[in-house]
Amino acid sequence: MKNLTIGIFGFGCVGQGLWKVLHETRGIHADIKKICIKHPEKQRPIDPGHFTTDPAAILEDPEIDVVVELIDDAEAAFEIVSRALRNGKAVVSANKKMIAYRLPELYNLQHQYDAPFLYEGSCCASIPIIRNLEEYYDNDLLTSVEGIFNGTTNFILTKIFEENLDFPTALRLAQTSGFAESDPSLDIEAYDPKYKLCILLLHAFGVFVHPEQVFNFGIGRINDFDIRFARSQGCEIKLIAHCYKSGDRVSGYCLPRFVPKSSRYAGIKNEYNAVDLESAFAESQFFIGKGAGDRPTGSAVLSDISALTYHYKYEYKKYAQNGATFSNEPTTIDLYVRFGRENQVNPGDFLEIYEQYSARNARYIVGKIALDKLQAAVWLNDPEVNIVQWGQRD
Amino acid sequence: MKNLTIGIFGFGCVGQGLWKVLHETRGIHADIKKICIKHPEKQRPIDPGHFTTDPAAILEDPEIDVVVELIDDAEAAFEIVSRALRNGKAVVSANKKMIAYRLPELYNLQHQYDAPFLYEGSCCASIPIIRNLEEYYDNDLLTSVEGIFNGTTNFILTKIFEENLDFPTALRLAQTSGFAESDPSLDIEAYDPKYKLCILLLHAFGVFVHPEQVFNFGIGRINDFDIRFARSQGCEIKLIAHCYKSGDRVSGYCLPRFVPKSSRYAGIKNEYNAVDLESAFAESQFFIGKGAGDRPTGSAVLSDISALTYHYKYEYKKYAQNGATFSNEPTTIDLYVRFGRENQVNPGDFLEIYEQYSARNARYIVGKIALDKLQAAVWLNDPEVNIVQWGQRD
Repeated sequence: MKNLTIGIFGFGCVGQGLWKVLHETRGIHADIKKICIKHPEKQRPIDPGHFTTDPAAILEDPEIDVVVELIDDAEAAFEIVSRALRNGKAVVSANKKMIAYRLPELYNLQHQYDAPFLYEGSCCASIPIIRNLEEYYDNDLLTSVEGIFNGTTNFILTKIFEENLDFPTALRLAQTSGFAESDPSLDIEAYDPKYKLCILLLHAFGVFVHPEQVFNFGIGRINDFDIRFARSQGCEIKLIAHCYKSGDRVSGYCLPRFVPKSSRYAGIKNEYNAVDLESAFAESQFFIGKGAGDRPTGSAVLSDISALTYHYKYEYKKYAQNGATFSNEPTTIDLYVRFGRENQVNPGDFLEIYEQYSARNARYIVGKIALDKLQAAVWLNDPEVNIVQWGQRD
Repeated sequence: MKNLTIGIFGFGCVGQGLWKVLHETRGIHADIKKICIKHPEKQRPIDPGHFTTDPAAILEDPEIDVVVELIDDAEAAFEIVSRALRNGKAVVSANKKMIAYRLPELYNLQHQYDAPFLYEGSCCASIPIIRNLEEYYDNDLLTSVEGIFNGTTNFILTKIFEENLDFPTALRLAQTSGFAESDPSLDIEAYDPKYKLCILLLHAFGVFVHPEQVFNFGIGRINDFDIRFARSQGCEIKLIAHCYKSGDRVSGYCLPRFVPKSSRYAGIKNEYNAVDLESAFAESQFFIGKGAGDRPTGSAVLSDISALTYHYKYEYKKYAQNGATFSNEPTTIDLYVRFGRENQVNPGDFLEIYEQYSARNARYIVGKIALDKLQAAVWLNDPEVNIVQWGQRD
């Protein structure tokens, strides 16, 4: 077992929790040598001698073999991570946006400089999903990966459906509870779970998918009518990221979905996340854990550090095996579309219409639509239009 | 990646499923060379040339590098596994009884002959719990591991609480559904989940625990009164195996438990299993998957075979780190004890009594009792006495 010398970038909640636990555990042989921060004037709970404001003090120190990147800014994070890998250092990060956008480069850097890059904390915080996809579901029998990948929106939806809060109140509560990202639109508009989906697409099915290739639609337009409609169907609404493989084609999207009150998804409350893996042989495998907050993310970072002590690295086995391609082209979904005025939505975009409703102030259509048609629909830009996937399965 | 040549012992459902999937997947490079069976006269779905009745045809064939042991008999299974390991072959097994009883020997054989032995299928079938304990929760921050480890009894309890079946009818249904072990008392009296607990105790906390050290009590004595009592408390009954670490002491037992109808455990239905890991940093981590049946077990066996292609072996990291000891001595639990006649149970065995009830045909006590006192209580042998743990937590 290797003894690690660590340099950390950022000393927010996750960094502080990590400091504490690394000093408590006997199981991991790792010392933190230096912590690089932006604001040296801030009060810190530990000796100021541990800090530096100079990235080179970590990145160019040959004694430091592991860099833990825990800053918010995706661009700056990529600079740190790529420079560390180029210097042959192992890197741990939980920065999903940075990773989702830069996966091909990060993949190449790891190979070129033979330096491991681990990022379990980037997907569903405490749930060990990347590691399980890499190591346990490493054959080609996996058919679908989906779940509740965003703690903030799940917290908001729980408060709406269980405590009858309205959307703005629920959002404020998520923010004061410390769950929301600094930019709440990343959560609300489902960018955050989409980034995670892009990362999991590589580890589950071996495809590099740029975030712009994946359709995402959030929960910001859910109104009273939608909530009443969900309840009338015995459902709640959850924000679900979904991807699946059919033959050599992989597809994926991130949409709100009606789920029955008795379903496993409805049982996932507040900041918890859930991942559902379907495979040919094991059928449904369901993982539940805290998906937001400093301690759950810290636990994932800690396990990555621990893995580095025995020289672990991702092998991207599916990518090596696969030759699958990502395309949403032939995918169709069942969809509820709620709008206000006639002609605000084009019914001709639907392949089939199952239900239609109109009243003075609200109309809706439930029908089957091609995902690429939906993605291109101009009416979807209208803030008075909302969509929810018509529950596909439990 | 290594190309494996496999010999299989046993060709029941799991073996047949494995045959099928190994021929379908591109991800695993493995060929089945020989299958050893007991009854050559049976009709088989594949070419008879694949079969042998001579164990040596597999165990002494230097071309075969992996032995997959899928027979029922624990003693014969140990002979096969130990001989294979001595011959330097990698071994995969799902035989929980054999493994639980023989863990120290199996551990030593692996080290002595440098041959890996993997047995993910032995614990909770499709849930990758051993692998996660080994690789992901490999530091000393884990505090407790518990869950529903037996699919048959969970199936029976689900039918009792959700479909109002009586015990014998529910048991017969489990048997005809193909879930029950050949000896149903292994399930009903909670030996099967105890074996799994013994295996997980080593991978979670680094302690070798003989099955006889662990207290188990099953669901065979649950009667109408107990069921009505559970319902009156808004609860169902689940059979829960539980172990935890406190300082350097590890404790564990397997008991029926009242769980609230709204709890996650109550949501685990039929043959599904669940594992709940608590750790200092990640808090609760919950895994759900099918815990009985040929395909879920087959999926675990398959993942073990797949892991062997990249030279995976268990490192028993906690055992190397730990120095913890197993002891139930200071453990106390809250317990419901139901009985028929006065003095059938000794109230003096309780440290504290919270509730007492008596009617003409049924009496119960709810109170706090030391686990070692309970284990030694003579009244517990009386078939008219039943116990259920008073729900400890969600």
